[in-house]
Amino acid sequence: MQLFIGNKNYSTWSLRAWYLMSKFNMDFTEEQLVLDTPEFYKTLSTRFDVQKVPALIDGGLHVWDSLAICEYINDAYLAGSAWPKDIAQRAKARSLSAEMHSGFMALRNEMPMNIRATRFVELSDTAKNDITRIDEIFTQQQADYPNAWLFGEFSIVDAMYAPIVLRLKTYQINLSEAATRYTEQVINCPVLQSWIKQALTETDIVECDEAGVDV
Amino acid sequence: MQLFIGNKNYSTWSLRAWYLMSKFNMDFTEEQLVLDTPEFYKTLSTRFDVQKVPALIDGGLHVWDSLAICEYINDAYLAGSAWPKDIAQRAKARSLSAEMHSGFMALRNEMPMNIRATRFVELSDTAKNDITRIDEIFTQQQADYPNAWLFGEFSIVDAMYAPIVLRLKTYQINLSEAATRYTEQVINCPVLQSWIKQALTETDIVECDEAGVDV
Ligand SMILES: N[C@@H](CCC(=O)N[C@@H](CS)C(=O)NCC(=O)O)C(=O)O
Ligand SMILES: N[C@@H](CCC(=O)N[C@@H](CS)C(=O)NCC(=O)O)C(=O)O
Repeated sequence: MQLFIGNKNYSTWSLRAWYLMSKFNMDFTEEQLVLDTPEFYKTLSTRFDVQKVPALIDGGLHVWDSLAICEYINDAYLAGSAWPKDIAQRAKARSLSAEMHSGFMALRNEMPMNIRATRFVELSDTAKNDITRIDEIFTQQQADYPNAWLFGEFSIVDAMYAPIVLRLKTYQINLSEAATRYTEQVINCPVLQSWIKQALTETDIVECDEAGVDV
Repeated sequence: MQLFIGNKNYSTWSLRAWYLMSKFNMDFTEEQLVLDTPEFYKTLSTRFDVQKVPALIDGGLHVWDSLAICEYINDAYLAGSAWPKDIAQRAKARSLSAEMHSGFMALRNEMPMNIRATRFVELSDTAKNDITRIDEIFTQQQADYPNAWLFGEFSIVDAMYAPIVLRLKTYQINLSEAATRYTEQVINCPVLQSWIKQALTETDIVECDEAGVDV
């Protein structure tokens, strides 16, 4: 399998698919493209109808979009084990993943992922509400699964929320004690650490991200 | 099961979940709330952490978000039959569904669903590109599955794209001949017709929708 991703410093959606695939030890090669360059669009347009990362090629099969890639890997290689086993928990995990996939726009716009940076920004009320909701989610799940991933075992929803954890760090946002325990566990995960390490070696500047537009 | 939905005239995400559940003959009661009213937020906030529709209650289980509801119904009641059987086709259907779930922002903002209206608006280039992409998707799938649903049998992806079909009608957008064949089939679907019929009886005005903000 070939997974096309963007800059590790900036590309939140790439991180989600990469994290899931890496954590479950999938056998894939990483095809890294620098966001916002002609090369990026050229490489993707010869292979995919949609010019966004992440995008996956598996033999003759093309999958684009982070959530679709996670569902595909779960379906094709993991016999469903990338979601919680219990149907009610699985429904909740899918709701949270979909909530992230289509929401948190203010937070995503005002706090773009920038792993190598430390920042302070004045947030809008909508972005503050997004943070309150994140805090609520992490706190609730820590109550149900103390000192563990959001649903006990690592699952797709942890991959979906990982970029948020890194943004909270960059922008120095405080959460509840329980929520903080969760974010620390994510940051200490060796697989995520290897992504972070590579992000820190990157030097490309992507203007729109530095200025605060979500990628 | 109880499915909470918004105004049938306006609420695109509600339509997606409702259409899937209705087309597959799920046994559910419809709890309709008028968007943008105190009652809407009050009713949802006593039951859900997120105050958006669609939202589903099934016994003790709560599912919010259109795509999560579709996946849940597929998982709990349909033994997977709401997605294409073939793994490559299923991956493609999930990619297209995720593309809709998180994208087409310009089209969604500039052409809010308003079933009972007929409109003409000047579109931005980004919205025009969104329409080109929709045309490409419908045309491609009609080539693979002539005179049929996007993947032959009706599946989640048809529910995800149904509100777009209704917007194309309201804003009088022309597509390719093949794509038009698909939109006609969707509009003639008796299940969708029953939603449209009820939308036409609604008289509430939701200001932000009339003005052009996506719901
Ligand atoms: N819904 C998509 C979003 C993908 C996306 O927006 N990716 C960004 C990078 S993180 C991108 O490729 N941007 C390039 C562009 O839009 O031109 C997903 O979940 O994968
Ligand atoms: N990602 C959600 C979006 C749901 C959504 O935005 N619903 C709109 C109505 S179509 C809503 O409830 N808006 C009320 C609000 O945001 O206050 C989904 O796919 O279900």
